[in-house]
Amino acid sequence: MPKPEKHVFICLNQRPPGHPKGSCTERGAQDLLMEFGRLIEEREAWDRVAITRTSCLGPCELGPTVLVYPDGVMYVGVKSEDVAEIFDEHLLGGRAVERLKAPLEIW
Amino acid sequence: MPKPEKHVFICLNQRPPGHPKGSCTERGAQDLLMEFGRLIEEREAWDRVAITRTSCLGPCELGPTVLVYPDGVMYVGVKSEDVAEIFDEHLLGGRAVERLKAPLEIW
Repeated sequence: MPKPEKHVFICLNQRPPGHPKGSCTERGAQDLLMEFGRLIEEREAWDRVAITRTSCLGPCELGPTVLVYPDGVMYVGVKSEDVAEIFDEHLLGGRAVERLKAPLEIW
Repeated sequence: MPKPEKHVFICLNQRPPGHPKGSCTERGAQDLLMEFGRLIEEREAWDRVAITRTSCLGPCELGPTVLVYPDGVMYVGVKSEDVAEIFDEHLLGGRAVERLKAPLEIW
C-alpha cells in the first residue's frame, strides 16, 4: 500500500463465547471492517485511507475499538452506522468525532 | 493500554506453505514480536511503547514488516537482531533507523 494520509486499525480480536471480557469481534467489529472497506470504494479513497485488522487494542469492554493514526485517536463502541461519520468527518475532513473518542483514562 | 509515545504494529499475517507471496510469519515475524515484548520489559518501557499484531501491511515479499506510528515509518526485512536498534534508536531515541526503512515506492 502507498503511505496513507489516515491509517485505520480495527480490532478484530476474538475470544471464546462466554468469556467475561467479550471481544471486539463479538461486538460487531467485522461489520465495521466491511463498512470502512465499502466507503473506501464509494469515496474512491484508495490512496488516502488504509485499513488494517489488529489483535487486541486494550479496552475490550468498550469495543469495538478503532484507532486512527497518525492522529492517535481511539474510538470505542463504534457501530456500523457511525462509520460514515468517522470516514467523512475525520479521515477525509480532518476533524475527529468527539462523541466516539475513548475516555482519557483509557487512552 | 495508555496512549503510547510509539505504537509498533507488527504484521503476523500467515499464508499456506508454498504460497508465492510467502508471509511475514513465515519470514520470522513471531520472533520480532517476542523480541519487542522482551525489550519493553527490559527497558521498562510499558508506558512509552505499545505493540500490536496486525493483518497484512502490504509488502509481503520484503517482510517481516513493522510499522511505527505516529511517525508513519515502515520497516521491512526486519530480523530479531535489528529489534534492539529500532527500540533504542527510534522508539526511545526518536531517530528512525534509515537502513531498514521500506523503499519510497512501497510506502
